Amino acid sequence: MNQAPRLDPALAAGNHQFLADYQARHFKWEAAGGVATITLNRPERKNPLTFDSYAELRDLFGRLRYAQDVKAVVVAGAGDNFCSGGDVHEIIGPLVRLKAPELLMFTRMTGDLVKAMRACPQPIVAAVDGVCAGAGAIVAMASDMRLGTARSKTAFLFNRVGLAGCDMGACAILPRLIGQGRASELLYTGRALGGEEGERWGFFNRLCAPEQVLAEATSLARSLAEGPTFANGITKTMLHQEWAMTLEQAIEAEAQAQAICMMTEDFSRAYHAFVAKQKPRFEGN
Amino acid sequence: MNQAPRLDPALAAGNHQFLADYQARHFKWEAAGGVATITLNRPERKNPLTFDSYAELRDLFGRLRYAQDVKAVVVAGAGDNFCSGGDVHEIIGPLVRLKAPELLMFTRMTGDLVKAMRACPQPIVAAVDGVCAGAGAIVAMASDMRLGTARSKTAFLFNRVGLAGCDMGACAILPRLIGQGRASELLYTGRALGGEEGERWGFFNRLCAPEQVLAEATSLARSLAEGPTFANGITKTMLHQEWAMTLEQAIEAEAQAQAICMMTEDFSRAYHAFVAKQKPRFEGN
Amino acid sequence: MNQAPRLDPALAAGNHQFLADYQARHFKWEAAGGVATITLNRPERKNPLTFDSYAELRDLFGRLRYAQDVKAVVVAGAGDNFCSGGDVHEIIGPLVRLKAPELLMFTRMTGDLVKAMRACPQPIVAAVDGVCAGAGAIVAMASDMRLGTARSKTAFLFNRVGLAGCDMGACAILPRLIGQGRASELLYTGRALGGEEGERWGFFNRLCAPEQVLAEATSLARSLAEGPTFANGITKTMLHQEWAMTLEQAIEAEAQAQAICMMTEDFSRAYHAFVAKQKPRFEGN
Repeated sequence: MNQAPRLDPALAAGNHQFLADYQARHFKWEAAGGVATITLNRPERKNPLTFDSYAELRDLFGRLRYAQDVKAVVVAGAGDNFCSGGDVHEIIGPLVRLKAPELLMFTRMTGDLVKAMRACPQPIVAAVDGVCAGAGAIVAMASDMRLGTARSKTAFLFNRVGLAGCDMGACAILPRLIGQGRASELLYTGRALGGEEGERWGFFNRLCAPEQVLAEATSLARSLAEGPTFANGITKTMLHQEWAMTLEQAIEAEAQAQAICMMTEDFSRAYHAFVAKQKPRFEGN
Repeated sequence: MNQAPRLDPALAAGNHQFLADYQARHFKWEAAGGVATITLNRPERKNPLTFDSYAELRDLFGRLRYAQDVKAVVVAGAGDNFCSGGDVHEIIGPLVRLKAPELLMFTRMTGDLVKAMRACPQPIVAAVDGVCAGAGAIVAMASDMRLGTARSKTAFLFNRVGLAGCDMGACAILPRLIGQGRASELLYTGRALGGEEGERWGFFNRLCAPEQVLAEATSLARSLAEGPTFANGITKTMLHQEWAMTLEQAIEAEAQAQAICMMTEDFSRAYHAFVAKQKPRFEGN
Repeated sequence: MNQAPRLDPALAAGNHQFLADYQARHFKWEAAGGVATITLNRPERKNPLTFDSYAELRDLFGRLRYAQDVKAVVVAGAGDNFCSGGDVHEIIGPLVRLKAPELLMFTRMTGDLVKAMRACPQPIVAAVDGVCAGAGAIVAMASDMRLGTARSKTAFLFNRVGLAGCDMGACAILPRLIGQGRASELLYTGRALGGEEGERWGFFNRLCAPEQVLAEATSLARSLAEGPTFANGITKTMLHQEWAMTLEQAIEAEAQAQAICMMTEDFSRAYHAFVAKQKPRFEGN
């Protein structure tokens, strides 16, 4: 094998600052062992989103696209709640007074957060306890996997504030998670989805005890970070890239994508480890 | 706020007759409090569809697209059954003798009923008890939400009469409700789906006692009619508009759609009601 | 009715050898009563796939597209396991040494197996017991229906060998079977899906006792083979043909497809049998 030169991350998109050094301004940010944890951190208000935190999350996930030291992401809320959504006073109040161009700028900005969450290669695990509402429910929905608690309450409550359920991709993503009929009910009524119901419907991958949900999400993220992270990133890309393809197009796209992964050293390492009856060590290349 | 002039419904598409005055010929039609109830009403035959009732339903849902006094729709069957589908003597017999152009005219007419059900802005709630078969199962499937009973039997029985499962959108819609494997089984075999199984699979949003299912469907429809009905209509449009979009296209489409909703007075009313700690009153504008 | 001349199968695509006479080289092949059974047959290795068996399966399913004496297919594994996937020594070892063009040739060949399974008109029923891993899980997934056992273990374990989950259409097909969140977990982690969990998620249509699963799959296939097999083939085509269509396109496509089925004698036979209170006999024409 040639000793491959490493691409200077700065060349890739100007993200030359390592993400481990990232200084978050509107939420808590911790990075350890390849796992970055984003904690929405205003527990006295159930961790609402503001214009500032929306924009910072959008920019952060955009930078993660080229980060080489972050392999998986956990999103959680401080205290006993995940996120109460867009703050009524700091977001909804101003929106009521805006005109069309500014409103579209806002809805595009929030949509760009979901696009950035889906476009970065790192799998995102949401640890959901307590209130998970509005834009908070969207952040959980746009994650790759979700661990919940029995007491969690997930509500796409746009309907309750006079808005449509089509917010940040919900009418496209939610039916693919729980089916069109159940998604319709949640989006038309805004009612809260309980934890057990959410697991039964496939919204949550599993339920955990409230005091364990963050630890279990971190453990899941760490196991992904120790796996073939380049291949994981390709899995993530293809999981939404193929939505609007025909079956034939999807199969051709996967043939190309998997052929790339077969040229990685991770694949070779796994084979040689298997032959030597050892556990493979993946390096994401 | 300006006092906005109201669009004459006649200008929108020639539907100048108010739907509350609609005189149904081939089913029962009741409209109260913004909720219209369509009752298939030939209980001694388990409420079959005929050429006439198909065509009238298609035209009625087409007119609902521009109706301003109907905010939600309930579809139900008289007696203890929902609908037995296309009448064997009045539909299948004639079809057996038709040639290709007339057959395509018929399948396009039935497909146009589903298109009209999806294209009108009103959410449709099906109240399903007893037999729900063939085209009846399609009408339930094409509704936005479904309340069932434990004794209901939903059968896509096209296979049993020598036809394919691809009837009126079933191969596109049913997999999105219950998943591709379960939909395949129902469409290949024509077997009846029981109520509890249907709830477990996400076909039914919930089960009700037979004597309650119509009342609960009406109650659900009424709560939607009292909500932000313009936004509900946008939710409905986007729930199928985004099927064949990429994720990126869907998010942009939702950004535009939600920006429109943010300019409604319903959104403003909801905000001001929240600040005043009152319950919002929505007016659908 | 005219006595229609039968198309010489040889004209359709050169497959003039009747499939009942097919001599399989790399698996067991039995055909009886319109049902063909493919048994992966190397039980001492849990029925792995090799380059040879992949290619033969691809070619066989390609020929089934024009076979008129095979009406449904069962896929099973010999012994207590379904299939352990691509053989580590016979497939993964060689792949590690290949270059890009040959790798793409391989991934296209395996993808072509799934394309051929979806393009043949016969419904495919997988009988899954024991280990169902890697490419074996793909073969089960690409079937139309799946019967499992409580002890079956289905693992999309590409991640464990350093590869991506996007193999042979998995990122497109699996989410449509079990939902996007659950599919994400299986593809990111490679963990085994148990039988009961698989039934609950809709991967399995139902669970059977291990000693019964092949018999029940055969019985299901036989009942399909005795049904309107031309119409079944149209159902199968439309079930994936409509994935990337808009709702409106799907409904038009179904109108055309169903109009064709309404011109079959199976449809006419079913009507006349119903009127005569007899059980219809379908002939697939």
